[in-house]
Amino acid sequence: MPTERRNSGVTRTPGLNQLHAIDAARGIREGLFSSEELVQSCLDHVRAVDEKVCAWAFLDPEHALRQARAADEWRLEGRAVGALHGVPVGIKDIIDTHDMPTEDGTVLHAGRMPDRDATLVARLREAGAVIMGKTVTTELATYAPGKTRNPHAPDHTPGGSSSGSAAAVAAGMVPLAVGTQTNGSVIRPAAYCGVFGFKPTFGLISRHGVLRQSRWLDQIGVFARCVEDLALIAEPLIGFDENDPDTRPVARLPLLATATQDPPLRPWLAFVKTPMWEQAEKETQEAFAELVEHIGERVEEFEFPAQFRQAIDWHRTIMEADIAKSFAAEYERGADKLSASLRGQIERGRRVPAVDYNRALDRIPALNGALNELFEQRCDVIVTPAATGTAPRGLDSTGDPVFCTLWTLCGMPTVTLPLMRGENGLPLGVQLVGRRGDDARLLRTARWLVNHLQQPQEDSP
Amino acid sequence: MPTERRNSGVTRTPGLNQLHAIDAARGIREGLFSSEELVQSCLDHVRAVDEKVCAWAFLDPEHALRQARAADEWRLEGRAVGALHGVPVGIKDIIDTHDMPTEDGTVLHAGRMPDRDATLVARLREAGAVIMGKTVTTELATYAPGKTRNPHAPDHTPGGSSSGSAAAVAAGMVPLAVGTQTNGSVIRPAAYCGVFGFKPTFGLISRHGVLRQSRWLDQIGVFARCVEDLALIAEPLIGFDENDPDTRPVARLPLLATATQDPPLRPWLAFVKTPMWEQAEKETQEAFAELVEHIGERVEEFEFPAQFRQAIDWHRTIMEADIAKSFAAEYERGADKLSASLRGQIERGRRVPAVDYNRALDRIPALNGALNELFEQRCDVIVTPAATGTAPRGLDSTGDPVFCTLWTLCGMPTVTLPLMRGENGLPLGVQLVGRRGDDARLLRTARWLVNHLQQPQEDSP
Repeated sequence: MPTERRNSGVTRTPGLNQLHAIDAARGIREGLFSSEELVQSCLDHVRAVDEKVCAWAFLDPEHALRQARAADEWRLEGRAVGALHGVPVGIKDIIDTHDMPTEDGTVLHAGRMPDRDATLVARLREAGAVIMGKTVTTELATYAPGKTRNPHAPDHTPGGSSSGSAAAVAAGMVPLAVGTQTNGSVIRPAAYCGVFGFKPTFGLISRHGVLRQSRWLDQIGVFARCVEDLALIAEPLIGFDENDPDTRPVARLPLLATATQDPPLRPWLAFVKTPMWEQAEKETQEAFAELVEHIGERVEEFEFPAQFRQAIDWHRTIMEADIAKSFAAEYERGADKLSASLRGQIERGRRVPAVDYNRALDRIPALNGALNELFEQRCDVIVTPAATGTAPRGLDSTGDPVFCTLWTLCGMPTVTLPLMRGENGLPLGVQLVGRRGDDARLLRTARWLVNHLQQPQEDSP
Repeated sequence: MPTERRNSGVTRTPGLNQLHAIDAARGIREGLFSSEELVQSCLDHVRAVDEKVCAWAFLDPEHALRQARAADEWRLEGRAVGALHGVPVGIKDIIDTHDMPTEDGTVLHAGRMPDRDATLVARLREAGAVIMGKTVTTELATYAPGKTRNPHAPDHTPGGSSSGSAAAVAAGMVPLAVGTQTNGSVIRPAAYCGVFGFKPTFGLISRHGVLRQSRWLDQIGVFARCVEDLALIAEPLIGFDENDPDTRPVARLPLLATATQDPPLRPWLAFVKTPMWEQAEKETQEAFAELVEHIGERVEEFEFPAQFRQAIDWHRTIMEADIAKSFAAEYERGADKLSASLRGQIERGRRVPAVDYNRALDRIPALNGALNELFEQRCDVIVTPAATGTAPRGLDSTGDPVFCTLWTLCGMPTVTLPLMRGENGLPLGVQLVGRRGDDARLLRTARWLVNHLQQPQEDSP
């Protein structure tokens, strides 16, 4: 499908929207097709399917195409291009963009137009990405659902809070999207929608210009349709930002180079049921028993000490106290326009004493210390469910984040891989969790596992 | 006073204890006298005056001399020596030392023997310092006084909480000492005792191995008898420590080199009365009016906006909530062995909601933003009182930290200079405050001011 940009209209190449981002970027770089064609293909697909999926909070096709044409012109002038040159990316609607509204999933912020891009959006633009549009979030990235439906079954939740980002990637409307996770808001929707999700280590990606729920829990994550694409988009996002006090000046992580390597030795995996295991559906429990058997000899079950059960409480203490502060203005201004569940969180959060809050925060290094021992002695990554089961039926809840909470609290890097299906045919995510800072190895192991499981019996996602 | 180490006894050179540290270090380096002679001279002075001052919580003369002899042997072997080689330093008794008890000023920790040195003690040893002994702290570095008296007037407080560090340096028992400041615990005792005190920018010196009151407020500070000595000891203490999450990997600050330079231009000073001005004694107010006049043309009065008044409340909210958590075990185990004032702080701290606590924390960057504007547009440093007046009479209180609170909250670097005296003859400190991170310029300006005021009329400290 070779092409050059023409002045009148654009070649329509069906199926470009289904390309992996890494192939799309290569195709643009090598002149096989233009960014405009790619974006047009995505927009055509949006028009075809989004009425049912409702993934977008804001999408101006002309604005997306303008960015694509600018990217094409830039390339045709022979200038250097970034890793994402011409590739469209969906952005969760709590992440500021200077050229589109950012409404945070609440009528209280309707019409909000930020002056500036969030740091991560600026980094995407530097890497050449086309900012396709803003994807639907739950109310203020908490629990009350937005309008998005699960692309695999419209009467099932897509998960949340990054509902639109997961659904847009799953439905083929965009190859990449960005979301956020304060509890399970990247991994859960990715798992429910059957895409690849990646939440890097706490502090790697700046949250400046992103709606804050909790300084200690908020983390950025990405959605894609293969492991390489997770690395492709995460790598340019990572970096120090003086406006986010929890980012650190560190050497750039070679995520893509590492993720595309084969591991030097076959990885060790620890299957961890976690103390939340009883909350997993029977089907999930059985599927993971089979998965572990299928992986073979280098996976070992490991049981966490009981203290890990309390992680859920510590996480709630921090999150609710932080939400109460972060959304105090919204509560003052229009409590009646907030969902009852969010009002409840805020009201509980107001009663959290600072002493309990700080005690809960102190648990994070202690938990990481215990987890580091596991990584040092027993495994490269942890294998565990991404959610209690497949996406629940109904659109009044976004499902249970219980299988994400511990890893979010600890700030560990985690991916979900769409490697299994439930009896209802819906995707069932396999979550891999790495050691803090060991994001590159996590992605390398994830790619290895995908290949390993696909080799003998075409157990394709 | 040239000498070499001899096997039997040690030459007694009276007055070595009164040397500035920088001269003492040079003397040892050049073989003019030994560390053993210096330490012996300090010990002799301790024996002569400490009965009245009571600056030491722990002091084993033999152990100090053993370190001194080891330093002398090291040098005589021709090996490289650090900036503090052979110079004795007093260490506040909340800072862990592996070879001496650290009892934190409370009977609840009597006999406590840490396994390891605090990071800052390890850094002092690396620089060649002799760890002379442990200096008296108030109860858990809060307000209830220890046994120390003001060397200038034994019925007056030395200030606190770093009471012994300030008094030991003031009384000539040791040329350098280390303390900590969570509110005014370095600057106030330094001012009351008539020595030079320096609390560097928040996060420059590791607090690992130091009794924690508050992650967000605790800061390390140093005591000396001239500005150069403050730079001499602070410089090797500064540096990243993975065990203190608030230290940062930064290039080493050339404190000593900068402090001993003349400013390229005559510095601009902003005289700031602060919203706490009415709490200053009349004598202090008048003395500062005279001082400003005396400094001359490049000092300008500047008034802070009213919001700065609330800094005291924000500081209290953070400090009391943190104290309630930090000393919860002590309260549980022996509330009856804590002072009534500390019990009160803990009990109030327990009632602080996390929302209020986090709101108070959020004020810190806002205040720093406002202060940075002042530094950018108007001045190199701020001039303001170090305390409300000279050391108050009586030993049941350590005086009022109100002139330190704002700068501690904001984590700004601050020094106190013993440039004035009250009508009672006791020292009255002049506090200079610098911009965050601008510690080297602060010390350079401090040295300039000392010289400037001494030149025309021998207004010596």
